[in-house]
Amino acid sequence: MNYQFADRINNLKPSAIREILKNSDPNVISLAAGNPAVESFPVKEMQEIANRIFHEEAGVAFQYGITEGYPRLRELLRRRLSEKFGMGTDNDELIVVSGGQQAIDLATKVMCNEGDVVVSENPSFIGALNTFRSYAAVLKGVDVLDDGMDLDKLEETFRQNPNTKLLYIIPSFQNPLGTCTSLEKRRGIYELCVKYGVVILEDNPYGELRFEGEDIPTLKSMDTEGIVIYCGSMSKVMSAGIRVGFVLAPREIAAKMTVGKQASDVHTNQFFQMLIADFMEHYDFDGHIGKIRALYKHKSGLMLDAIREYFPKEVQYTVPQGGLFLWCTLPEGADMLEFVQFAKTKGVAVVPGVAFNVEEGTPSRCFRLNYSTPSDEKVVEGTRILGLALQEFLKK
Amino acid sequence: MNYQFADRINNLKPSAIREILKNSDPNVISLAAGNPAVESFPVKEMQEIANRIFHEEAGVAFQYGITEGYPRLRELLRRRLSEKFGMGTDNDELIVVSGGQQAIDLATKVMCNEGDVVVSENPSFIGALNTFRSYAAVLKGVDVLDDGMDLDKLEETFRQNPNTKLLYIIPSFQNPLGTCTSLEKRRGIYELCVKYGVVILEDNPYGELRFEGEDIPTLKSMDTEGIVIYCGSMSKVMSAGIRVGFVLAPREIAAKMTVGKQASDVHTNQFFQMLIADFMEHYDFDGHIGKIRALYKHKSGLMLDAIREYFPKEVQYTVPQGGLFLWCTLPEGADMLEFVQFAKTKGVAVVPGVAFNVEEGTPSRCFRLNYSTPSDEKVVEGTRILGLALQEFLKK
Repeated sequence: MNYQFADRINNLKPSAIREILKNSDPNVISLAAGNPAVESFPVKEMQEIANRIFHEEAGVAFQYGITEGYPRLRELLRRRLSEKFGMGTDNDELIVVSGGQQAIDLATKVMCNEGDVVVSENPSFIGALNTFRSYAAVLKGVDVLDDGMDLDKLEETFRQNPNTKLLYIIPSFQNPLGTCTSLEKRRGIYELCVKYGVVILEDNPYGELRFEGEDIPTLKSMDTEGIVIYCGSMSKVMSAGIRVGFVLAPREIAAKMTVGKQASDVHTNQFFQMLIADFMEHYDFDGHIGKIRALYKHKSGLMLDAIREYFPKEVQYTVPQGGLFLWCTLPEGADMLEFVQFAKTKGVAVVPGVAFNVEEGTPSRCFRLNYSTPSDEKVVEGTRILGLALQEFLKK
Repeated sequence: MNYQFADRINNLKPSAIREILKNSDPNVISLAAGNPAVESFPVKEMQEIANRIFHEEAGVAFQYGITEGYPRLRELLRRRLSEKFGMGTDNDELIVVSGGQQAIDLATKVMCNEGDVVVSENPSFIGALNTFRSYAAVLKGVDVLDDGMDLDKLEETFRQNPNTKLLYIIPSFQNPLGTCTSLEKRRGIYELCVKYGVVILEDNPYGELRFEGEDIPTLKSMDTEGIVIYCGSMSKVMSAGIRVGFVLAPREIAAKMTVGKQASDVHTNQFFQMLIADFMEHYDFDGHIGKIRALYKHKSGLMLDAIREYFPKEVQYTVPQGGLFLWCTLPEGADMLEFVQFAKTKGVAVVPGVAFNVEEGTPSRCFRLNYSTPSDEKVVEGTRILGLALQEFLKK
């Protein structure tokens, strides 16, 4: 049969990153992933809790749950966001979702008709961009400077696109850049969104992973007008494989997202919602996150040391204060895609910058590096090989 | 802020059934659910396997997995479908999804543009109907007779709607009817779909739960032309709360669904995919399913005995040979919605038939009963109260 697929899905290509991960050659050191470090999962504690749930609450854990999420987890997350980060008003509701990706999916599902505009930082997280494309939204990118989006260009974009429904932003330890939007710019972005009636989709999977400097308030913590949908994730602070995230959003939006979630997957895995609630309530969640921060400070330090030692001076790179990534820029005139291929022949995989471009087909001189997934040895060795490859490549 | 929601989500109302479940009054016996029996979960075995995974494979279980699903589980499911049910050719691919609901969501996502037609049995599973609505598909219902859809009406519907992209069907132990489509009708339906170029979305969450009579071949087992997307679920044979299901579909469709799933939730909970694979490989999966069948034979028997004793003769009901439901029809002229309210005041909740109507606003004289969720005592007591309520109500 000659299948006639929906237009929305014909526009989507498989994620370049996930394809790179899938076809990974064991002889190639991958600095291309975005996975948390395996040693960051609190396995011993999770097993203790799992045993308790099996003994005491199996009937709840294995039965259908409610779409909004396991009530105790919702309470604990809400309280944490309020007490630690000043987020959430009486007008907000917290719901549990199946990972941060689903938060983005549901936000788009409820806010965007086909042809509506989503404005995004450029470059940005390919998984989110693909979700917007899967709803046939029109993507407009605003270039990111060292301290966040160019506000003039953002306002110009809003002005030119009155049907903008969402602004997508990763304000802390941005993927792929590794940098943060400054407090001043966050305020400016919030005000522009109020002025133009645009809902902010604040994606903050790495916010807890600061290992240097001071926390910057989230956009949601400024949300007096009820325009911010805040997406959080357990993937980088507990486990990625369990697929648990959450959304703090104005009540009316959260209610629509709940209806959308009923039609998507009914509810999120109940067992691990209960397990996280127990961990947050009875274990040292902050202490655990502190350990992950120390781990990533260490691993990013290893990568930066190797970069300083082996990278040619004309290659620029960001110095992250948290999160999982840093972003390298080749000198003008260099062919980044050719270099990425060249590096692979030398034994290192990185993600080409074009994968993160909001507007497909625009060129990029950049690539993304990840230090959380590989072992310490591979971080050092991979970065060294990459540096030598850069030296050789740029001399040509 | 005055939110402007997407049209697709404005058309959706919260599931009537899930609202009934959420607001359940402890004094009301609910025959309204669709949950598996708590005692059907193989808790002891799952705990054994969980301990092994925590000890031996935590690094895989808690890390990101691939979108198509855990490879070992995909192999085992594929082999089972082939060996036990004669499903799957070289042209098919099996992917794991986050429960049967996501299978329906992804199938619609990849096959239907807004305004395309989905033809469904009428009445049918409200969760699926809402998913179709969430993609702004146009729903057309074909009434179900004792042995399945009216084939003349089905052909007429295809003829009148050349942009029909999917036929949605639950051929075995249909929700809400509890009945099966006959082999002859399955063949007729398959042929009509080939003739009109319509992809079949075969939803079979209850297929393993036959406790009386002989299995009827699935539509997928007849699929020489590559037109059937088969949706299976672990919800009724392992656990509903873990949210694991699967799809067997022509390779090209499965690939598109995988791309769609990347944008929805990246992948399904990895830990429970591994747990199910281990259970299927090292435990007696068929023996376990045999126990669930015996359990539901017993529970349906209790309900049917109480129906025969207490229901007025003019109330019709289906006699299921498997699955979780039976379907009752009031005599002509009776106001079903009024009766459902009346029954609730007497202490029993049932789902009004209108909830399952493909075309909203059409009347129904029916209601759905469930025997899998309540305890044996509540099945008997709830059905007795309902019978007495029917006697009183129909005398008025």
